[in-house]
Amino acid sequence: MLTTFKATAKKTETGLQVESEARGFKITFDEPKSLGGTDTGMNPVEGVLCALGACQSIVCAAFARYKRFKYEEFWVELEGDLDPDGFTGKNPDVRNGFQEIRFSFHFKTDEPQEKIDEFADFIESRCPVGDNLGHGVKLVRTAAVKE
Amino acid sequence: MLTTFKATAKKTETGLQVESEARGFKITFDEPKSLGGTDTGMNPVEGVLCALGACQSIVCAAFARYKRFKYEEFWVELEGDLDPDGFTGKNPDVRNGFQEIRFSFHFKTDEPQEKIDEFADFIESRCPVGDNLGHGVKLVRTAAVKE
Repeated sequence: MLTTFKATAKKTETGLQVESEARGFKITFDEPKSLGGTDTGMNPVEGVLCALGACQSIVCAAFARYKRFKYEEFWVELEGDLDPDGFTGKNPDVRNGFQEIRFSFHFKTDEPQEKIDEFADFIESRCPVGDNLGHGVKLVRTAAVKE
Repeated sequence: MLTTFKATAKKTETGLQVESEARGFKITFDEPKSLGGTDTGMNPVEGVLCALGACQSIVCAAFARYKRFKYEEFWVELEGDLDPDGFTGKNPDVRNGFQEIRFSFHFKTDEPQEKIDEFADFIESRCPVGDNLGHGVKLVRTAAVKE
């Protein structure tokens, strides 16, 4: 059944700082001083890495029993390469977003490596955020409203 | 110049709850009770919407002067449609992530609508998170490690 998730993002009065909110839960985004911000929060592309790792972790937690995979701890380390010359307009041949995102899964478990690899494949294949980042999603601007 | 951004995500001992972190800034992700979580934070797909709106807001703030666009306030409303039958495996024909993401820009400004539309196009075209979601990005699993 199709579910609609919602969020808002609003620029504050401080530099590049933004307050995002979904169902009452908030995140403060900002940029480091090196990118013109006041460094009061992670930036949006770091937020994307955080959301991807969280989504993979939730898939791990939600499906471990179903896949008969036992583990004590799970974490993800993520990194992504981005060239600011893209979005700043300095180099039109450089894309604006990440050029590549890499991640590694870490399991504290007694399962054999073969079963770890198989479960890692499953996590990767089922993750909603990974699906959208890896394959893209239709983005539709419905309005640009003067308030 | 290529810059590498990093993050980690780690499952906590509480249900589906995950702590993500980038440069010392943290986000708690969870799922609502309807999706099997303990509802202590937004979920990762909501986090993606928050990051997209924040990224668009930062592009607005960072480039307004360069584009000679004056405004007092800016915010973004976002929503995305996702069918949980995809990632739960109930329906193999349904994709795991969002099927569509919609957003609207809201400007408190005295600029004419034509200039608003033009600046909205600019924001949309330059946004790094929008680039990655709209066009996809290469995702590489570098390891699945037994700790």
